Amino acid sequence: MNGIFITFEGPDGAGKTTQLKKVAQELQKLGHDVLVTREPGGTGISDKIRSIILDPANEEMVDQAEVLLYAASRAQHVHELILPALQAGRIVLCDRFIDASVAYQSYGLGVDIEMVKSISKFASSGLQATRTYIMDVPVEVSLERLNQRAGTGDSTQQLDRIEQKNVAYHSRVRAGFHQIAADHPERVLVIDANRSVDQIAEDIWQDCQQLLEEHISV
Amino acid sequence: MNGIFITFEGPDGAGKTTQLKKVAQELQKLGHDVLVTREPGGTGISDKIRSIILDPANEEMVDQAEVLLYAASRAQHVHELILPALQAGRIVLCDRFIDASVAYQSYGLGVDIEMVKSISKFASSGLQATRTYIMDVPVEVSLERLNQRAGTGDSTQQLDRIEQKNVAYHSRVRAGFHQIAADHPERVLVIDANRSVDQIAEDIWQDCQQLLEEHISV
Repeated sequence: MNGIFITFEGPDGAGKTTQLKKVAQELQKLGHDVLVTREPGGTGISDKIRSIILDPANEEMVDQAEVLLYAASRAQHVHELILPALQAGRIVLCDRFIDASVAYQSYGLGVDIEMVKSISKFASSGLQATRTYIMDVPVEVSLERLNQRAGTGDSTQQLDRIEQKNVAYHSRVRAGFHQIAADHPERVLVIDANRSVDQIAEDIWQDCQQLLEEHISV
Repeated sequence: MNGIFITFEGPDGAGKTTQLKKVAQELQKLGHDVLVTREPGGTGISDKIRSIILDPANEEMVDQAEVLLYAASRAQHVHELILPALQAGRIVLCDRFIDASVAYQSYGLGVDIEMVKSISKFASSGLQATRTYIMDVPVEVSLERLNQRAGTGDSTQQLDRIEQKNVAYHSRVRAGFHQIAADHPERVLVIDANRSVDQIAEDIWQDCQQLLEEHISV
């Protein structure tokens, strides 16, 4: 395995995709062969699974089915796309990976954490990221950004009942991400994403350059 | 849980569906409330997953994704349809269940058996069948029946290369079903399905009547 596998984690509205694209651009400027991908999705079969997971019509979906569909999508994504790219020496940047399952499904929904980890490990044949950036913002900030993105009006208004419920859920997810970082200090870096895009990008790029030095022989 | 959960297992071409329908008819004659269902499938979400599993266009699907998709379909099927029916005291007849995953995916494809069992248990929240009938026929017989069903010509001809490959695979699956029966003698009954439909039906119905006596209070 010659490539480098970098994952970006954190809530919607934390700026994952923006930062991932900036890293991709910088890497490409340096002449690296970069693959940008995301979960759930990334391949034809994974995208078909993604459409079942995200279809609002499937509101009766049980937690176990959700966990297993994410894992099925990941299995195809890892074996069809990510592993061959890494074996070819490419740098793979992925928007969400196993940590998202652990944070959202175990810490958020309450599904048994050892089961989620075991299923994820099976799906990915044990593949782990070389480096993971967790984009960390207070829950209120990510929800406000999402509201603004959805065009649902004045972000200074009080959160409504549903959003209040979301605050409890998303607080568990955020705590989960912090726990994951504490459990894997050698892999995971928590990035304060409650700052300007450029400040965040500077931190990430500084770490990326170090990662490149460590992993790519001169 | 007041209902009775009966599963029918065995290869395509062994007569599972025919026998399942006969049992359903007999039970209904006696006034029982019967639910007939099948895997993969059985609910709206499960059927969407089934269509991904069975679509010949998805030939690049990796084994791990297949295992997880079957399990996701099962999770939805169990929690949305089977468990509520059993809790309402109905008799559920299901065409394939967990034993099929173990036989085809572990014994057939070679996926780690403890993993397949663990994922299946998670998907079904530990639900097991009250009784399982394994329809057992020599591999050559089930393949010949399939060939005839598919209208691919003279069943007395020698099997071709692909079918020869199938013989090895299906022999492992059949041995797997026998092992499952040996592991769970209190639940699983192997039925010699290389006989007339009526002879087979008589054996199954005799056992079913005993099962009813044991499980339904007078």
